Amino acid sequence: MTYCCGILVRDGLVLVADTRTNAGLDNISTFRKLHVFEKPGERVLMLATAGNLSVSQGVVNFLAEGFENPETGEVESAMTAQTMLQAAQLVGRAVRRSRKEADSSADQSTGVSFEVSLLLGGQIAGGAPRLFMIYTAGNFIECTPDTNYLQIGEHKYGKPILDRAVHYDSDIFDALKIGLISMDSTIRSNLSVGLPIDIALLRRDALQLEVSTRIDASDDYFRDLRNRWSKALRAAHMAIPAPPYRGREP
Amino acid sequence: MTYCCGILVRDGLVLVADTRTNAGLDNISTFRKLHVFEKPGERVLMLATAGNLSVSQGVVNFLAEGFENPETGEVESAMTAQTMLQAAQLVGRAVRRSRKEADSSADQSTGVSFEVSLLLGGQIAGGAPRLFMIYTAGNFIECTPDTNYLQIGEHKYGKPILDRAVHYDSDIFDALKIGLISMDSTIRSNLSVGLPIDIALLRRDALQLEVSTRIDASDDYFRDLRNRWSKALRAAHMAIPAPPYRGREP
Repeated sequence: MTYCCGILVRDGLVLVADTRTNAGLDNISTFRKLHVFEKPGERVLMLATAGNLSVSQGVVNFLAEGFENPETGEVESAMTAQTMLQAAQLVGRAVRRSRKEADSSADQSTGVSFEVSLLLGGQIAGGAPRLFMIYTAGNFIECTPDTNYLQIGEHKYGKPILDRAVHYDSDIFDALKIGLISMDSTIRSNLSVGLPIDIALLRRDALQLEVSTRIDASDDYFRDLRNRWSKALRAAHMAIPAPPYRGREP
Repeated sequence: MTYCCGILVRDGLVLVADTRTNAGLDNISTFRKLHVFEKPGERVLMLATAGNLSVSQGVVNFLAEGFENPETGEVESAMTAQTMLQAAQLVGRAVRRSRKEADSSADQSTGVSFEVSLLLGGQIAGGAPRLFMIYTAGNFIECTPDTNYLQIGEHKYGKPILDRAVHYDSDIFDALKIGLISMDSTIRSNLSVGLPIDIALLRRDALQLEVSTRIDASDDYFRDLRNRWSKALRAAHMAIPAPPYRGREP
């Protein structure tokens, strides 16, 4: 499995993605799921992927190398999209094409799932930072200030903290911190999501990444965050008075 | 959907269950999912159910009214089982029988799922308090001090707090509190789980329920718990220093 979340705040965008892939429990590997297409001063596109690895790698390759738009005959890539909306549409087409190739070359009887889901976040000069989730069918939804985060993969464990803590007006580094807490909750509860974590932070109108790094088990800050969070949760539930319920009602 | 969790501690057992059922999003009802079979001084059995309501109600009816064991010809019920293990086996047989009846009378082409899962906790005089999870197939697993909780239904949202906070040596009312926090996390993140909540607390060797009550939206303690927990989480993530990551690596 996978867990990735993207958070949109007034000041920009944050993406957090794990790197664990598994084909069964006995075939676990590390693959980068957070991909960046960047031309400083012009565009930053961040793509996080979940689901079938051959399909999602196909998508990344199509976006990097470009592929023909059957309607216009032009070769389009992540570097040629004029707007974030066009980029999201392009990812949708890349998903359809990559799935088609995987399907046609695969034995249908294997029961393999070619489903994928992706987060696309970024900004292209002249437009605002935007965050999209693209589905297997190539359709997509966009993040808005009302619900300012999107998740793909193993999303349930890390949702409660996002539901409570993250808002459109949150500080962008606070959003990153909450994304890391959400990732920590998921890693603790689900073996199929694991370190290292890739993170990317794009400040509005910067048009180049402010942070792009990998966090592994030796990372002091993340280790401290995990410890503090655990201790704080323990203190939080200890501080709540004991339930007053006694006896039988009604 | 449903969310129920059972927690086994040295001093006894706690069960927490919501009451929301839905057949589609536009057909939501309140049904009791936590059932108690009790003869003070002799036995307390608590059964929490998730999944297909007709099958799970069938199970409860079989346990209450008794049904014939085809091997011995005797009529067995929740009140006749000699040990908790026998009670778990009985629930397994009741599940198989209830599913069979549902299947044979249903139109197979409807695509309805007759899956259920159940938690059975309790103590019968002469034995220890035990907690089991019974699956659709009628097989079951038992809770142990290593992993001292079991969940059925929409279990992921409420798992992180259980993973961190609850231990076999926890105080029994602390376990109830953590069960309520776990329920609160689930209710906040998933519309298909809702108030009121039924709770039951059985202290080791008491052989009668110490607490059995329903918590609804007007309950002062639960409202206070939700507020305190939200505030504590906010304070907890605010207290963690901002991420130090800057720039690009590697």
